[in-house]
Amino acid sequence: MTIKLIGYPISTPTLRVVICLKELGIPYEFEPPASFQALKDKDYIANKHAFGKIPVLLDGDYVINESRAICRYLVSKYQGKYNDTILIPSDVHKAGLVEQFISYESCYYDSPVSKIIGQEVFAKKFRGKDPDPEIIKQGREDLSKVLDVYEKLLEGKEYLIGEFSLADIFHCPCTNLAYGIAAHSDLWDNRPNVKNWWNNLRNRDCIKKSFEEVKN
Amino acid sequence: MTIKLIGYPISTPTLRVVICLKELGIPYEFEPPASFQALKDKDYIANKHAFGKIPVLLDGDYVINESRAICRYLVSKYQGKYNDTILIPSDVHKAGLVEQFISYESCYYDSPVSKIIGQEVFAKKFRGKDPDPEIIKQGREDLSKVLDVYEKLLEGKEYLIGEFSLADIFHCPCTNLAYGIAAHSDLWDNRPNVKNWWNNLRNRDCIKKSFEEVKN
Repeated sequence: MTIKLIGYPISTPTLRVVICLKELGIPYEFEPPASFQALKDKDYIANKHAFGKIPVLLDGDYVINESRAICRYLVSKYQGKYNDTILIPSDVHKAGLVEQFISYESCYYDSPVSKIIGQEVFAKKFRGKDPDPEIIKQGREDLSKVLDVYEKLLEGKEYLIGEFSLADIFHCPCTNLAYGIAAHSDLWDNRPNVKNWWNNLRNRDCIKKSFEEVKN
Repeated sequence: MTIKLIGYPISTPTLRVVICLKELGIPYEFEPPASFQALKDKDYIANKHAFGKIPVLLDGDYVINESRAICRYLVSKYQGKYNDTILIPSDVHKAGLVEQFISYESCYYDSPVSKIIGQEVFAKKFRGKDPDPEIIKQGREDLSKVLDVYEKLLEGKEYLIGEFSLADIFHCPCTNLAYGIAAHSDLWDNRPNVKNWWNNLRNRDCIKKSFEEVKN
């Protein structure tokens, strides 16, 4: 039975799952919800997502939601089935480092990047508001400090733990949106190791294809 | 070689790891950092935690930081070694539900609880500031909505996915602090399923012992 992914490509959590599906070579069908309002329907809340959010993955009768949870489920069930891409290594010490970078992303990296894209992308697009320059400035300052740490951690490495992993994927959706704004790509490009890392990621075949899907 | 945990018991991330160590029956030594300032030392940043935070776990020569990453590492390496407590089930579908609740905790539950304890506990204790009643009010309102959803999800269940798991542990440290403030325990106690769940957790032997360690 084909896996179905309920979500919007523009949503960064949905894109996180799309990259994971493509990297693991898992066939899937994309299904945008009927409307934003449909996410608050009784049936959707009861059977798809208790908090009325996207993305949701349907794997036969099994329903799972929340992008990070879905990605982990896909790795546990399908890693090695369709191709030889490894997103969480079997070695517990290497896997621990993947987890460490996953936590860095959610605790330190995501918040300042989200400040920038919240203003530059979502405020304009969905709320018809002008971006708040103060919030953007704060986001840039906070992100600069985080990227200074990443610059050191990425020394001599192609990816966060050396080899490609789920931790890299988790960084992609927000970075893609923020880097796509000409005024902010300097944050990555001015740091040679960070720049090299981001170029490695955005030039990967599956990630490139995922980003193209978002543009449609 | 004995596992060492660098952290402060009052820190909720450190407590998360303490509960995990105790539940899995792993012997460990507790090592508070010399001072808050020591976390910003060059050596600590280079060898323990690149962002200068706690907790950090030392397992022989292996160093891992970030509480959620440490807990996952402990499960991968030690689950089933010292006792038969299962925190992440081997069944991929059950494990997926654990991941879903872990994401609910970090995306919906943690933020309002942290608002309350940030004001009621940490503002007073560490910044000598009076709590801001507006932030507390907002935290209570947001948390009420989240706990209404939990009330439905916990119907007929002793723990979040039915059986005890890592998802329950991740909820414990912040809940313990917030529930310990008399003015806020009603948020859990007024909802029968949520109350039952929280009682199940705080009366577990290992969790009780972990909470007692925090009091010292």
